[in-house]
Amino acid sequence: MEEKTDDRLLLNIEYPSDLKKLKVEQLPQLCDEVRRFIIDELSNNPGHFAASLGTVELTVALHYVFDTPEDRIVWDVGHQAYTHKILTGRRSVFRTNRKFRGICGFPNPKESKYDSFIAGHASNSISAALGISVAQRLFKSSRQTVAVIGDGAMTGGLAFEGLNNASFCDNNLMIILNDNHMAIDHVVGGLSEYLVKLTTSQTYNKWRNKLYKLCLRIGLIKESQREGLIRMNNSLKAVLTSQHNLFEGLNIRYFGPVDGHDVIQLVKVLRDVKDFNGPKVLHIKTKKGKGFKPAEESATEWHAPGKFDKNTGKRIIPPITADMPPLFQDVFGHTLVELARMNDKVVGVTPAMPTGCSMSFLMHEMPERTFDVGIAEGHAVTFSAGLAKEGMMPFCNIYSSFMQRAYDNVIHDVALQNLDMVICLDRAGLVGADGATHHGAFDMASFRCVPNLTIASPLNEIELRNLMFTAQEPGHGPFIIRYPRGKGVIADWHKPMERVEVGTGVCLREGTDVALLSIGPIGNRAAKAISRAVEAGMSIAHYDMRFLKPLDEKILHEVGQRFKNVVTIEDGAKNGGFGSAVLEFFADNNYSVQVRRIGLPDHFVEHGTPDELYTMLGMNEDGILKVLLEFK
Amino acid sequence: MEEKTDDRLLLNIEYPSDLKKLKVEQLPQLCDEVRRFIIDELSNNPGHFAASLGTVELTVALHYVFDTPEDRIVWDVGHQAYTHKILTGRRSVFRTNRKFRGICGFPNPKESKYDSFIAGHASNSISAALGISVAQRLFKSSRQTVAVIGDGAMTGGLAFEGLNNASFCDNNLMIILNDNHMAIDHVVGGLSEYLVKLTTSQTYNKWRNKLYKLCLRIGLIKESQREGLIRMNNSLKAVLTSQHNLFEGLNIRYFGPVDGHDVIQLVKVLRDVKDFNGPKVLHIKTKKGKGFKPAEESATEWHAPGKFDKNTGKRIIPPITADMPPLFQDVFGHTLVELARMNDKVVGVTPAMPTGCSMSFLMHEMPERTFDVGIAEGHAVTFSAGLAKEGMMPFCNIYSSFMQRAYDNVIHDVALQNLDMVICLDRAGLVGADGATHHGAFDMASFRCVPNLTIASPLNEIELRNLMFTAQEPGHGPFIIRYPRGKGVIADWHKPMERVEVGTGVCLREGTDVALLSIGPIGNRAAKAISRAVEAGMSIAHYDMRFLKPLDEKILHEVGQRFKNVVTIEDGAKNGGFGSAVLEFFADNNYSVQVRRIGLPDHFVEHGTPDELYTMLGMNEDGILKVLLEFK
Repeated sequence: MEEKTDDRLLLNIEYPSDLKKLKVEQLPQLCDEVRRFIIDELSNNPGHFAASLGTVELTVALHYVFDTPEDRIVWDVGHQAYTHKILTGRRSVFRTNRKFRGICGFPNPKESKYDSFIAGHASNSISAALGISVAQRLFKSSRQTVAVIGDGAMTGGLAFEGLNNASFCDNNLMIILNDNHMAIDHVVGGLSEYLVKLTTSQTYNKWRNKLYKLCLRIGLIKESQREGLIRMNNSLKAVLTSQHNLFEGLNIRYFGPVDGHDVIQLVKVLRDVKDFNGPKVLHIKTKKGKGFKPAEESATEWHAPGKFDKNTGKRIIPPITADMPPLFQDVFGHTLVELARMNDKVVGVTPAMPTGCSMSFLMHEMPERTFDVGIAEGHAVTFSAGLAKEGMMPFCNIYSSFMQRAYDNVIHDVALQNLDMVICLDRAGLVGADGATHHGAFDMASFRCVPNLTIASPLNEIELRNLMFTAQEPGHGPFIIRYPRGKGVIADWHKPMERVEVGTGVCLREGTDVALLSIGPIGNRAAKAISRAVEAGMSIAHYDMRFLKPLDEKILHEVGQRFKNVVTIEDGAKNGGFGSAVLEFFADNNYSVQVRRIGLPDHFVEHGTPDELYTMLGMNEDGILKVLLEFK
Repeated sequence: MEEKTDDRLLLNIEYPSDLKKLKVEQLPQLCDEVRRFIIDELSNNPGHFAASLGTVELTVALHYVFDTPEDRIVWDVGHQAYTHKILTGRRSVFRTNRKFRGICGFPNPKESKYDSFIAGHASNSISAALGISVAQRLFKSSRQTVAVIGDGAMTGGLAFEGLNNASFCDNNLMIILNDNHMAIDHVVGGLSEYLVKLTTSQTYNKWRNKLYKLCLRIGLIKESQREGLIRMNNSLKAVLTSQHNLFEGLNIRYFGPVDGHDVIQLVKVLRDVKDFNGPKVLHIKTKKGKGFKPAEESATEWHAPGKFDKNTGKRIIPPITADMPPLFQDVFGHTLVELARMNDKVVGVTPAMPTGCSMSFLMHEMPERTFDVGIAEGHAVTFSAGLAKEGMMPFCNIYSSFMQRAYDNVIHDVALQNLDMVICLDRAGLVGADGATHHGAFDMASFRCVPNLTIASPLNEIELRNLMFTAQEPGHGPFIIRYPRGKGVIADWHKPMERVEVGTGVCLREGTDVALLSIGPIGNRAAKAISRAVEAGMSIAHYDMRFLKPLDEKILHEVGQRFKNVVTIEDGAKNGGFGSAVLEFFADNNYSVQVRRIGLPDHFVEHGTPDELYTMLGMNEDGILKVLLEFK
């Protein structure tokens, strides 16, 4: 155990104004203290670990040099921003991080004026910070704006759009490229390779002086020009590494790379660079998991490791036993491998989430048929559409909330051409601790209006397998399967797969008073509530609809004819969602039925455990029971 | 008038197999014939003119060199693809281009096997073609895949995501960068500047040989290595122009620039380049409007000029008289200028459509407060969110179907932070000749589920102005206003603006048999149908609801209490749209009402005039009347 005296600097810092009282020589110690604080806290209260350890020095330097909150720091993806939270008034409540009613795991302007912009989805920082910087120019303010973006997030198209625009309009934006060669999994793509080569070329170091002098001699640059010097330096790298400076190519001044763990140098460099007028990039090199050996060695595993022993460095993983249901993710992963073995057209596509969605299983067994395309959801879908157009059967797996990024790609590139391919929406419904930015709330409501789509959600692991089996057969057009984060309900899930007839549901229980129509795994909770209502003397029919689109019209006609009271339940937005589709059917077919819809409300839902959140929303077992009993 | 003998080559070409029979020396004449054919056809039957004239030589060369349709050509945005259509079996039906039941204005795989992928929204070609190319690799096929993308479309983030991925996975993709320094309006941003500098530098031409020899001497490259030579060439450019080759930076081989109007050279270069294995970019320089002087001089005006006199070069613009209603676009444009004069927080943001949406008016009067951010819808929204976060009041204007690209940006960057800003969705509803890719069908259904949004649609020009006036006042959160392409209904529209109470509709007509609830300008057509139903003896109430969200609950309670029969009408997708919201309200409030919903069906709607299309869908005056009379 560390002694408390080790925290003597951090304990006196509530806000950046306190930090500024330190001498620059004291900053390394402060960084050590912050790092220990994070390790300490996160060993007990799980969170995004490795990324946070990588930005300790950067964050300390930023708040030391800049005048926050007057100057604006826009973090790209909040994983990096724990030090920022700790230094801006939230150290004492940091133990509530990601907990229900506690502080949010990502920067959130509602929580603190130091959080300049929301930061849950990758790649938005440059665009947002550019807007902020341009507004400052319009106000003739001298406020500074800094965007901090990882090399992973730089692969997102939105970041490129921001860069392209930054090069053109009047602004004073500083972009800090936090280059750790990692997103959650390893960063893929040319940009990533480019960043490595830019900084590590042997040739570069060897030839640097020689060529520099040659170029001086032919008058290409003048030694007196600092700007030319910087540019020349980059150009030399370009020549020698066969690489080229992307940023200078876009007329954005480039500085770096700088060691992102040398806080004293960072302070110096930030002070120098911030005085350059106009858009600029500072490239820093950091290590994910810095200062905690196991995390340095395996940053993917330590992205969000859960609880761990801070002394031994062992993760505390709850034991898995044969009688426990698996994660939906693992069922997806194993089933995809099985399907790929059976069907040589099956390939996997993921935008930088192979581990999170368990496509890593296929990647391991068939690397040539698995494509991690980087943080690039739009491309993931359109690339899959290209594969499908040629007769492959892609399984494109994207988290529901990130799929919002590829809405047009699904409409324009997939649905319009009615391509046979599979889209798996992982993390559908409430995801828990990641909160409002990550809940998969809108996929059913937004995709329901798109022609040609088939949209399904399994009740359990066996249905997930059967839906995947069904979807990989050609002839269905685009086939969306949504399922939640976390555990299913069936320990003995590994059954032979069966074809599901598209657009059919299942009657799980007969009844006469009320018909409950559910879609997806929330049907399991509904089933328990129904059992209790039945115990209370009610007769309730339960239909697992399975398909949002096409709806099972046979079931709906039966329900419309036999029932006056219907309850629908879904773990998605109630506005325009599954219940709304049921209402439309009844209206279009002249059934006069009283329908109660249970689903996510018309406000953003905060973070907490799924149980806490569903309880708050009246969507837990008790809440469902209450609705049923109203019909008694 | 040209004599028919001038078309002797083109008349014998139905398919690329015919083209291949020509000698390469005959291709310039063929290009002349194609160009005259396009000028001839488009002078009578309007279409996308300037872009098509720019790609005549490229298209002839591509079909001459490649073995289409076995080899795949993926066009980015169909504007460029008229020559392609003419040479692939559609010359004789080209006069039906963009007409109802005629050929589609964009490449469309349903129409021809020569159209490899859909091409209505910009920037998708690299991603789609990469998928195709990777599939060919998996099949071990030697088919070639070519993506043709303009420099405007290259500013879209999706193109960058595709490039980044292309550099990394095994493929043989050829990307042709058709660089005319234009999208519809001038291309903006660093990328565009970069492409100009890459090719025009005086320094480059001056120093090329000198530095080349120097670098040979120090052993940086060997003359024997062709690959090194090419790369060196690019690197020299990088050094000398202070620019850097973006593509080589991403490990994608770069060739060019090449004169895109020299068909013989293009054939030669394409033959050379296609044998290089792996991803590659061929950069060609073309001129929009090439070969038709007025279009060369003003490509924006001649993007889609309508009818024109091919001999005099005069556009045939129908006269505008004072008694004619204006375009909704012009009402938006003029009103935005008025608001910007009144409110110094108001700024305009457009993703490359200043002319199309008439934000050009503000750009002309207040260039410093108007931001054309390039073809980058996602960035346009998040950039606006940054501006709004600092207290500006951005009017971000995006066509409804293109806004599908920014769905997540609206949710994550705008709605979650509940920012005061205005989003104008132009081209909402059916757009006409541009067809399925461009109809604004899904915005109401997809945005309705998003918390914090206000969503409105004006009945007419005066309501548009009043909604814009209301929206620019702070305190409303994100405010979406949707309106269609084309003319409104009120000639005398320029009235003083008035505040509208958010979430209120208007009763346009009292009645007792049926209540018709409309949203948006389709209400005008509904009003005519109602008049006829009233003449036929019915009593019909008409409510212009104005707001999709929040709904006017006062009106809905009144309707729920007083009417048994309700008709809803909207020019958007019926699934999950306005009518669906009305159903939800009635269900949630226990009203038993028979509701008939009129709206866009659950299939993609083709091209044609809006009148033709609405008639086909039963949404014209007669169609609406028919629904009303069913309640008689």
